Amino acid sequence: MVCVVIMAGGRGERFWPKSRWTRPKQFMDLTGSGSLLYLTYKRAARLVTPERIFVVTGREYRDITRENLPELPAENIIIEPAGRNTAPCIGLAATVLRYRCPGATMIVVPADHLIKDEEKFTAALATAARLARHTGGLVTLGIRPTRPETGYGYVKTGAGVQLEKGGLAYQVSRFVEKPDAAKARQLLADGGYLWNAGIFIWDVSVILEAFRLYLPDIYAGLLRLAASIGADTYEQVLESVYPGFPKISIDYGIMEKAAKVYTVPGDFHWDDVGTWKSLERVFGSDANGNVIHGNVIAFDARNTIVDAGKRLVAVIGAENLIVVDTEDITFICHKDRTDQVRELLRELRSQKMEEYL
Amino acid sequence: MVCVVIMAGGRGERFWPKSRWTRPKQFMDLTGSGSLLYLTYKRAARLVTPERIFVVTGREYRDITRENLPELPAENIIIEPAGRNTAPCIGLAATVLRYRCPGATMIVVPADHLIKDEEKFTAALATAARLARHTGGLVTLGIRPTRPETGYGYVKTGAGVQLEKGGLAYQVSRFVEKPDAAKARQLLADGGYLWNAGIFIWDVSVILEAFRLYLPDIYAGLLRLAASIGADTYEQVLESVYPGFPKISIDYGIMEKAAKVYTVPGDFHWDDVGTWKSLERVFGSDANGNVIHGNVIAFDARNTIVDAGKRLVAVIGAENLIVVDTEDITFICHKDRTDQVRELLRELRSQKMEEYL
Repeated sequence: MVCVVIMAGGRGERFWPKSRWTRPKQFMDLTGSGSLLYLTYKRAARLVTPERIFVVTGREYRDITRENLPELPAENIIIEPAGRNTAPCIGLAATVLRYRCPGATMIVVPADHLIKDEEKFTAALATAARLARHTGGLVTLGIRPTRPETGYGYVKTGAGVQLEKGGLAYQVSRFVEKPDAAKARQLLADGGYLWNAGIFIWDVSVILEAFRLYLPDIYAGLLRLAASIGADTYEQVLESVYPGFPKISIDYGIMEKAAKVYTVPGDFHWDDVGTWKSLERVFGSDANGNVIHGNVIAFDARNTIVDAGKRLVAVIGAENLIVVDTEDITFICHKDRTDQVRELLRELRSQKMEEYL
Repeated sequence: MVCVVIMAGGRGERFWPKSRWTRPKQFMDLTGSGSLLYLTYKRAARLVTPERIFVVTGREYRDITRENLPELPAENIIIEPAGRNTAPCIGLAATVLRYRCPGATMIVVPADHLIKDEEKFTAALATAARLARHTGGLVTLGIRPTRPETGYGYVKTGAGVQLEKGGLAYQVSRFVEKPDAAKARQLLADGGYLWNAGIFIWDVSVILEAFRLYLPDIYAGLLRLAASIGADTYEQVLESVYPGFPKISIDYGIMEKAAKVYTVPGDFHWDDVGTWKSLERVFGSDANGNVIHGNVIAFDARNTIVDAGKRLVAVIGAENLIVVDTEDITFICHKDRTDQVRELLRELRSQKMEEYL
C-alpha cells in the first residue's frame, strides 16, 4: 500500500507579499489552474485514493487546506503545532501513518512545487515506491539538471540499480549542498549529478528506524506521540512534544547519514518556485525579458517581473525590477535584492505592522 | 480696485496618477495644508476680499472648486468651456471683470504653484499693481533664479523703474523661452534674468487693448461675449465663441509683442511644481536623496520618490525611481522617463481605459 504525504506547512516568505502569513505560497494560484497545494493533491490522486493522501500543515492553515482540498478526508490533515523543518514533519507523518496505514510505503512531496509532465512524474514515483519496498532503502527523486542552478542541492549518482519491472535508479554516493556558480557549472558538466527535489519515498518502518538511528531524540518524542494516537491525550502530547523538536531538515538529519540511499531520476519539468525570479522559468519571459501578469501597462521595461491584480500597474523605464501589487501592499524590489525580503519582514514585525506579514 | 483671477483649468497630466482628469493638480493637497487652489485662494485673500477673487476653470471642475473654496461667491467662478491655454483664458476673465469690476487692476495667478514667504509675495503684487496702474503697462512677476533651471522661461531685465512708494521694478527687454542647460547656466551667470512665473498684473482696460492690437480675432470673440454678459444668451455665446479660440499662451500672444512690459522681481520661494521631480525641491530629500511620503518602508533606496497613501509600499534596492501609489493605480517610472507619461495616457485612452485618466 502506498500513501502520499504532502508537506504544506511553509510560510513562503520569499513570495511576499503575494504569499502572506495567512496565505502562504502553497495556497497561491500561480498558474490560474488552482493553488500549488491543489495541483500537488491532484498529482497524488493519480497514484492513490483520497483516503491515502495526507497533508501536514499548521493549525492556522487547517481551514484553507480544507477549502483547497474538499475531497480530502478531514482526518487526513495532520497538524504540526510549529514549523520545525522537514525531519520532524516527516517523523510526525510517519508516526501517524504507522497507525493509520500499517505497512505502507510513504511518498513525501512538498506542497509548493510546480511539476509538468505528470505522467512521467507518477511513473517515476511508482518506480521509486517499488525500489523502496524491495530494497528497504531511502529513495529520493532526482531531477536531471537543465542549468547550473545554485538554488538547489544535488545528489551524486553511484552504481546503477537493476529494477524488476524496468525503470532507472542509482545508489546515491553523495549529497551536495547548494553550490556556488562555478561548482554548479562543474556539476552540470560532470553529468553524474541530479537535483535533489525534496521528494522522498520509503517504507514507514524504514524511515522510523532511520529516526531511531540518526535522530534518536526526535524518535523518542515520536514514540511518546505514537502511544497517544487514537486517545484523548494526542493533541496534548503533540503540543508538548513537537515544539521541542530541533529545526532540522531530513537531508541533513537522515539522508546524508543513511547507508542505503537511492535516487530515481526524473526527466519531467520540476521547479520549486522558490523565488519571484523562478516565474521567468515557469511562465517564460517576453522579448524584453519581462514577465507580466494582470492589469499592467509597461513602457520600456526590461528583465522585469510585474505581478498585478485588478488595480492598474503602470511602468515606465523599469529594469531588473520585481513589482508585486496586491490588495493592500505594493512591493518593488531590485532582482538582486530579493534576499532582503526576510529583513524587511523582520522590520515590519519590529514596527508592529503584523497585518502586512 | 484690485481683482485677482486664479487660472484653475489645467488637467495636470504630469502629476498622473495622483492628479487625474477628475481631480487635476490644482486640487491636489501636496503639503497637507490644503489643495494648491485653496492655498492660492488664501494668498489672494491676503490682498482682496472674496468678492474680488475670480476662478477660471472647466465646467467639470465647478463642483470641486466650490468644495475647495466655500468662501468664494459662486458667481465668481468663470467657466471656460474648453482648455485654450492662457491667452483666451485671460481674455475671458478680463471681459467678465470689465463688467463685474469696472476700472479694476487685474492680478492673474495660476492655481497650481507653490509659494512660500507669502508676505514678500503679496508685497511684490502690491508693488506690481501700483506699477501697472501708474504706467498703463503689462507687468509680470519675475523670480530671482536660484539654479540654472531649464523648465522655466526667463525675462531679461532692462532699465530700472522709479516707484513712488518704493519697491523695485524693471522694464522687460526680452522674453527667453525655456533654455537648454548651457544657456540656463549662462543666464544665471549673467544675473540680468528672472524666471517668468506666469503671474501677471495689469489694468483690465490695458490687457483688453492689448488683445485688440495683438490678438484681434480673439478680441472680436471677446466683444461678442461682452455684449451677452448679464443676458440669458451668455452661456450660448460662450459655447459658440470660446472653443473656436486658438490655443495660445499670453506670453507668446501678447507679452513678447507688447511695448510697455515691466517686471517686479520677487525674492520669495516659488515653484511651479511642474513634475514629480519638483517634489525634491518642495519637500527636500533625505540623506539618500529620497523623498518619501505615506505608508512606506524602504531599504537601500536612492534618489527615489515614493508617494504612498494608506496601502503599504515596500521598496528594496530602488534607484532613480518615482513610485506613486493611489487607490486604483500604482505608477513606477524611471526619473529620466517622466516625459513618457503623456504617451502612456494616450495609450490608456486608445485602449479604452479612460477610468484611469
